[in-house]
Amino acid sequence: MANPLTPDVLVDPVALTRALVDIESVSRDEKVIAGHVEDVLRRLPHLSTERHGNTVMARTDLGRGRRVVLAGHLDTVPLNDNFPSTVVDDLIYGCGTSDMKSGVALALHLAATLPEPGYDVTFLFYEAEEIESRFNGLHLVSQAHPQWLEADFAVLLEPTYGVVEAGCQGTLRATVRTAGRRAHTARAWRGVNAIHAAGEVLRRLEDYRPRTIVLDGCTYREGLNAVGISGGVAGNVVPDECAIDVNLRFAPDRDERQAAEHLHEVFAGFDLEVTDSAPGAMPGLASEPAREFLAAVGAEPEAKLGWTDVSRFAALGVSALNYGPGDPLLAHTQDEHVEIGKIRDGAATLYRWLTAYE
Amino acid sequence: MANPLTPDVLVDPVALTRALVDIESVSRDEKVIAGHVEDVLRRLPHLSTERHGNTVMARTDLGRGRRVVLAGHLDTVPLNDNFPSTVVDDLIYGCGTSDMKSGVALALHLAATLPEPGYDVTFLFYEAEEIESRFNGLHLVSQAHPQWLEADFAVLLEPTYGVVEAGCQGTLRATVRTAGRRAHTARAWRGVNAIHAAGEVLRRLEDYRPRTIVLDGCTYREGLNAVGISGGVAGNVVPDECAIDVNLRFAPDRDERQAAEHLHEVFAGFDLEVTDSAPGAMPGLASEPAREFLAAVGAEPEAKLGWTDVSRFAALGVSALNYGPGDPLLAHTQDEHVEIGKIRDGAATLYRWLTAYE
Repeated sequence: MANPLTPDVLVDPVALTRALVDIESVSRDEKVIAGHVEDVLRRLPHLSTERHGNTVMARTDLGRGRRVVLAGHLDTVPLNDNFPSTVVDDLIYGCGTSDMKSGVALALHLAATLPEPGYDVTFLFYEAEEIESRFNGLHLVSQAHPQWLEADFAVLLEPTYGVVEAGCQGTLRATVRTAGRRAHTARAWRGVNAIHAAGEVLRRLEDYRPRTIVLDGCTYREGLNAVGISGGVAGNVVPDECAIDVNLRFAPDRDERQAAEHLHEVFAGFDLEVTDSAPGAMPGLASEPAREFLAAVGAEPEAKLGWTDVSRFAALGVSALNYGPGDPLLAHTQDEHVEIGKIRDGAATLYRWLTAYE
Repeated sequence: MANPLTPDVLVDPVALTRALVDIESVSRDEKVIAGHVEDVLRRLPHLSTERHGNTVMARTDLGRGRRVVLAGHLDTVPLNDNFPSTVVDDLIYGCGTSDMKSGVALALHLAATLPEPGYDVTFLFYEAEEIESRFNGLHLVSQAHPQWLEADFAVLLEPTYGVVEAGCQGTLRATVRTAGRRAHTARAWRGVNAIHAAGEVLRRLEDYRPRTIVLDGCTYREGLNAVGISGGVAGNVVPDECAIDVNLRFAPDRDERQAAEHLHEVFAGFDLEVTDSAPGAMPGLASEPAREFLAAVGAEPEAKLGWTDVSRFAALGVSALNYGPGDPLLAHTQDEHVEIGKIRDGAATLYRWLTAYE
């Protein structure tokens, strides 16, 4: 198949967004799109390009004093009658338009059209962000080629609707279990109903007032929710077990251990097991490259509430933030779309930033 | 597989109890046990035997003036590390020992060893009593072969610990649903958590004070329990639905409609759907065969709290009561067992009753 990412397309981030959306790339099926991106990058003499799995890395080596990363994932959630793209007025509709091929288009456009940026730039186009962490291209690269991620600052082109969303919240999942004693429901007073006992767990969830905290000028809003509940033995048996799965989203001033301790406090007296967690990332806006980036955007940063791969950079000591043209509220929806104006604004902003120190 | 219900086993109701317990027969898996029982009955020349699904009927046709039914279900609740049977001193442990293979053993023992009872006797060994009513063998027979159930009086060999338990409570199952609105858990305030909303349903269940009422000298004790709960979409989604299955056990002075109305009152403000119900049965101790049976037992009757199939007989105009060697408090427990002495007493009592008018 001919590469649809032609020179004519690469110079226009809007056309490039559509071209990328129209290459189907649901998670675990990124081989074709990674091949086209790799092909484009290898033809550019100012970049050294490498590939690991379906993740492609390309970087300048201009001897600038500082290095920044522009990163975006190539995969999308499953199609949902929203492929290929369509354009209505100034909106491009389709799977991945917001999350995050419009962001990927900005990075690829700059890689192709800006041979001498003010900083050395590492471009990362990676696989499998939308599924389990073990498949995540950034995770795999951090294991196999950690030097690819070395930088002073990173921008993740996740959908933020053109504002800077700094850091990210952590996420922790746990199971709270209540126990009882089985009995026939006709003689229920001989048993102890574990589902009734779960009422107290739900009451604490209902009464929970999530914390709001301002860090580096960004307001993080935590949350604690039941995301699953199950219990019951049979239609005539007082149940002896009930399990409530909860998800805590926590601001980045708590680490995973503190988040787990907090949950143990909330559910004191109950059996609680942490099943999964990922750390947040502090906004990290104090560093010089971050301040320069904020100046180029020219607007106040906000807090990123969802978990994103900025926390992988934070774990490596690289301050990182989210910035992209898509609307995060449209991510993973059938109606997903992106505003053409936001794509043009984003390209202009990144160009301004990367040329300010040329 | 050879039939373990050999002539040597059939003459001893204790050995027969163990042999029946050791044939696994969780509801919907009664084919093997029904086959063995049918095989035994078809070899007995004084009985006419028929089968419907996994329900086996055998009856004498001696031209006696009255006909009585001895009925027992072949199925058990799911195994719970209590299979096969074990014997400790004078107790037989195992799934179904109490509910109700010891009762089934009495009926099968009498079918095999008493060719000329004082009444004509219909023996019914039926499937699927422990699950939804639509699978119940006695229900299926009442639709397909109602003449099999015609009689002047019926004894259900449900566990009563050797006393007569009269009538039975009704049972009604319903599903209470709470609704919400989905959202990403990182922005939970945009959604409404349906599992949290279920807390109020569980609170009403915890606060519920069941009624106690005396009818015909028998004390009925009602109960209302959650028997199942489920909800949840994904680990990062505020759930938009939660379903709580409840089971009401109601005294026989309420009919099914009144019981449903009562539940609607308890869960006022919530979406409630009745999924299954069965009426209770009034004690019905005034009939002549009932009085003869009580004389043979020689003890005062008590109220039956569990729902039993006596209500199916009551609905057909056949007065019926519960009488069996098992302890009803052990039914459906992991520790289920039966006293060997109660099996021997039960066999002797039924023999006395069935030969008194020979």
